Amino acid sequence: MKGSDTRDRLLRAGLDLMSVSGLSGITLGQLAAATGLSKSGLFAHFQSKEHLEIELLNTSAATADHVVVEPIMLAPRGLPRLQAVMDHWLGWSHRAGLSGGCPVAAAMFELDDVEGEVRAHAAKLEFRWRAFLGELVRDARSLGHLTKETDPDQFVWELCGIYLSHHVSNRFYRDREAQTRARTAFAALVSRYESSPPEPEPPVKA
Amino acid sequence: MKGSDTRDRLLRAGLDLMSVSGLSGITLGQLAAATGLSKSGLFAHFQSKEHLEIELLNTSAATADHVVVEPIMLAPRGLPRLQAVMDHWLGWSHRAGLSGGCPVAAAMFELDDVEGEVRAHAAKLEFRWRAFLGELVRDARSLGHLTKETDPDQFVWELCGIYLSHHVSNRFYRDREAQTRARTAFAALVSRYESSPPEPEPPVKA
Repeated sequence: MKGSDTRDRLLRAGLDLMSVSGLSGITLGQLAAATGLSKSGLFAHFQSKEHLEIELLNTSAATADHVVVEPIMLAPRGLPRLQAVMDHWLGWSHRAGLSGGCPVAAAMFELDDVEGEVRAHAAKLEFRWRAFLGELVRDARSLGHLTKETDPDQFVWELCGIYLSHHVSNRFYRDREAQTRARTAFAALVSRYESSPPEPEPPVKA
Repeated sequence: MKGSDTRDRLLRAGLDLMSVSGLSGITLGQLAAATGLSKSGLFAHFQSKEHLEIELLNTSAATADHVVVEPIMLAPRGLPRLQAVMDHWLGWSHRAGLSGGCPVAAAMFELDDVEGEVRAHAAKLEFRWRAFLGELVRDARSLGHLTKETDPDQFVWELCGIYLSHHVSNRFYRDREAQTRARTAFAALVSRYESSPPEPEPPVKA
């Protein structure tokens, strides 16, 4: 399994580079240097730069599944699980040991005006992620933790805004308040849709 | 003034490229091709790639001053002026005739983990922009349109989240609902801090 070990090592090194410099910041020469392989050795694993980029996006998604999704799913269903999104999604790239920020967030800004299969693949992964978040909102709504009027798409849209603003304030501004700001924004978002005030326990609507 | 005309044309073409491909997507070769100049001709105008990038960020800011800030300042002070931010900020790069999205938003994700003077300059411009937004919030608060408890930094932080989520949904997803989603989020943000409820339907929580 030497070949697949090398491939894993390449993808891991590539993901780290991508988290710092973005997709366009990764050259095959850099990746070869970072892993001690020749450029032709790299081409044996990835047929093209596009193919490498798609594999890097997949590696990012697989890493996030492990570092973000798995711990979220350990929280109790409904609102507690939505709260767990805040604990595990924000700043995940640091906890995954990456040198830079969330590679997919950066890719969305990098690829927004660039057509092609890499963009299409990034969009597919991000749609999948938002569908996952939407399911958590729907679950909280069906359990009565959020009102029936809750619009899951609007909730997810605003949650993504909190994530992106946190990314910028945390990584670009290096603002120590980033986490507090994000939590305040999230609490306000939840309280707009919350079925019952937090004090009493019964989560079921009258 | 031939030299300064050429320089303006270079910066305009460069800003358009930057809006599509980001800072790292601009090569001197591309810019030379887009403007019919030689690479050495480009170097006569900009001493380095970094210098060109800083000038492009300045061009972006000057364009936004014209397309975003000037019309905002025509709106009546206070809440109407804050509302005008939504009308003129979101989607401004399209109204400025650029082929791609907001170059500074993309630069924040591109430069977040990259040290250097380009990053420092982008941060300076973005701080200036956020200070401007903060002033509008303070003004709305001092006029009594927003409550005394309004935290301008939190307001601006969340407003930037709305802007970023709109950028992604508008440009990356090409979602027709982007504008409506952004307006719903903004209305909720304002209503959290609004001094007096709009007569017909008080949105104030108990």
